[in-house]
Amino acid sequence: MAEHETPEAKGRALVQTLIGGIPPNSVMPPDFQKTTIEHLFGTVWQDERLDFQRRSLITCTALVAMGREAEQRIHFVGARNLGISREEISAMISHIAHYAGWPNAVSAFRVLKEVWPEEEEAGG
Amino acid sequence: MAEHETPEAKGRALVQTLIGGIPPNSVMPPDFQKTTIEHLFGTVWQDERLDFQRRSLITCTALVAMGREAEQRIHFVGARNLGISREEISAMISHIAHYAGWPNAVSAFRVLKEVWPEEEEAGG
Amino acid sequence: MAEHETPEAKGRALVQTLIGGIPPNSVMPPDFQKTTIEHLFGTVWQDERLDFQRRSLITCTALVAMGREAEQRIHFVGARNLGISREEISAMISHIAHYAGWPNAVSAFRVLKEVWPEEEEAGG
Amino acid sequence: MAEHETPEAKGRALVQTLIGGIPPNSVMPPDFQKTTIEHLFGTVWQDERLDFQRRSLITCTALVAMGREAEQRIHFVGARNLGISREEISAMISHIAHYAGWPNAVSAFRVLKEVWPEEEEAGG
Amino acid sequence: MAEHETPEAKGRALVQTLIGGIPPNSVMPPDFQKTTIEHLFGTVWQDERLDFQRRSLITCTALVAMGREAEQRIHFVGARNLGISREEISAMISHIAHYAGWPNAVSAFRVLKEVWPEEEEAGG
Amino acid sequence: MAEHETPEAKGRALVQTLIGGIPPNSVMPPDFQKTTIEHLFGTVWQDERLDFQRRSLITCTALVAMGREAEQRIHFVGARNLGISREEISAMISHIAHYAGWPNAVSAFRVLKEVWPEEEEAGG
Repeated sequence: MAEHETPEAKGRALVQTLIGGIPPNSVMPPDFQKTTIEHLFGTVWQDERLDFQRRSLITCTALVAMGREAEQRIHFVGARNLGISREEISAMISHIAHYAGWPNAVSAFRVLKEVWPEEEEAGG
Repeated sequence: MAEHETPEAKGRALVQTLIGGIPPNSVMPPDFQKTTIEHLFGTVWQDERLDFQRRSLITCTALVAMGREAEQRIHFVGARNLGISREEISAMISHIAHYAGWPNAVSAFRVLKEVWPEEEEAGG
Repeated sequence: MAEHETPEAKGRALVQTLIGGIPPNSVMPPDFQKTTIEHLFGTVWQDERLDFQRRSLITCTALVAMGREAEQRIHFVGARNLGISREEISAMISHIAHYAGWPNAVSAFRVLKEVWPEEEEAGG
Repeated sequence: MAEHETPEAKGRALVQTLIGGIPPNSVMPPDFQKTTIEHLFGTVWQDERLDFQRRSLITCTALVAMGREAEQRIHFVGARNLGISREEISAMISHIAHYAGWPNAVSAFRVLKEVWPEEEEAGG
Repeated sequence: MAEHETPEAKGRALVQTLIGGIPPNSVMPPDFQKTTIEHLFGTVWQDERLDFQRRSLITCTALVAMGREAEQRIHFVGARNLGISREEISAMISHIAHYAGWPNAVSAFRVLKEVWPEEEEAGG
Repeated sequence: MAEHETPEAKGRALVQTLIGGIPPNSVMPPDFQKTTIEHLFGTVWQDERLDFQRRSLITCTALVAMGREAEQRIHFVGARNLGISREEISAMISHIAHYAGWPNAVSAFRVLKEVWPEEEEAGG
């Protein structure tokens, strides 16, 4: 990532990597989308104390711990696109089952099965 | 970790590494402590798809996302004892602030400051 | 609201204002629906220390903070029918994103877009 | 339940009683399903300090308190199959409304209506 | 409980049984205390579809599932005063550990040890 | 607020109004404190679609709904300093009791009593 890039450029590039870009029909209003791209993805995620892979893993972890299935759909796909293996995500969910409860884990496995079918692992 | 060790031995060794062993005056009743040592630390944590460092990081992440300060005290210390840097934990908390909210992050920074003062980093 | 009205009458009138009345096929059993009308809408909401608009705004806020999308559908519509502007709700969601996390905010924006399309604001 | 049965056999028998067996197309990966059957249903649930009926009631209660609708579908049916009456579940939801909030209760009533229609009570 | 008693009388009697009466220095303002006595303890808890013991057990369960330690102090004592055994509460916490996570369970065991020491069981 | 002020200046001024300035011994690390001042208080709170009073009220509401007592201490004081009456906060807590449960409300009343004693209202 070039040092001189703006937060907006960095944020857009990261969203491109994670999920192929911002969907044209996003539910976010323009001001919140701008904050999300420039501040969240373009600044917070760019802090080099944690690399993208680890940020993806902890984001997925928080989403499982909080039981937010809609956002797991985005970030499980993002994890795959950053090169995290399906087995790591699966092991994380089993681990978090003990810290945030079985119901959150079972729901997360349901999302994982839907957005990242097992057969895709080899070619992923 | 020797392959032939029992879950109990593996669990006790891990707790020893994380926090110096089970406190003699634990609040857990014997049956739950046994499940915690043998099942949680002796089996779940031992699954090699994720190493101890990453399990520690995701455990700390879940505890921040859920706002569980009492248990953060144990696992932030455990993270330090596994060689995770204070900056990684600090960066994780700043990141999770955006996924689980400022209040959980501020409380986690309070715990971090108490159990892992900044000056300890160099010698940690 | 006439002073001499019963809690039931006050509650029914408020539900009428908020969402056009209790749906005939409500999921609530009769005893709980009675408590909801007489106690929650007919007594709690009628306490004049906070007016209906502010009660609607804090109810929507709590629903966003807790990530309860199903009930947001009811109360976002109720907010519109009480004269709260779509921009106020949108600003509230962006604000709460920082206190309860992005995932709850993004889901709330999804609900808002579904139950209160932007083009309706002018005529709302 | 015969004393000499394995946790796996006990766990499978309990799941059979609750929901008629493990669905062939379960979302859980094999290792987590094994832990669920042997550890959760085959060991934790078998602890005789609380009988199955009370374990079912507290499980349903926790799921309502945490707002986990997907898992309520399984355990409300399980409660019915263990002989808990629909009125007990309905009274529990009304009670928990006051401890975990109306939104979780209303959503739980929605699930209850879907998986356990009222007319089934007599013959249930 | 005499049929003709008012909700207020029923509520006060129940609070007397649970925790020996309302503390003179309650944190609740008068209007909320009135709602708590008349509506929550005097009406909701009095619904005979679930007896006091089961209402106490599910209340304790919800408080563990939600990690509300301050209120566990009140209701664990209330459970003891209603004749629920310490072992039942302990078994409930171990059970809920799997549905709401280890952190909530460990904190609940800490409260239990503080407000209901083990040696009290025999004479309790 | 002068239009040409920086987010940092606006954020510092708001924190000054709310709680008399940033405590010298803040638990937040410098980078997170900077984000809090410039982004949260200096940008998000400054969005004029909702005024400071309403932002304070919804912030307090979210903190009650999520049961975050440590941060309620800050924002209840902030509400007082913005001119919100103690009765409005008290009414909000009673209202939210029904949406997020009694335990969160009782804990919030405890905080309110500690940081904003009743006798202070007249002179507040």
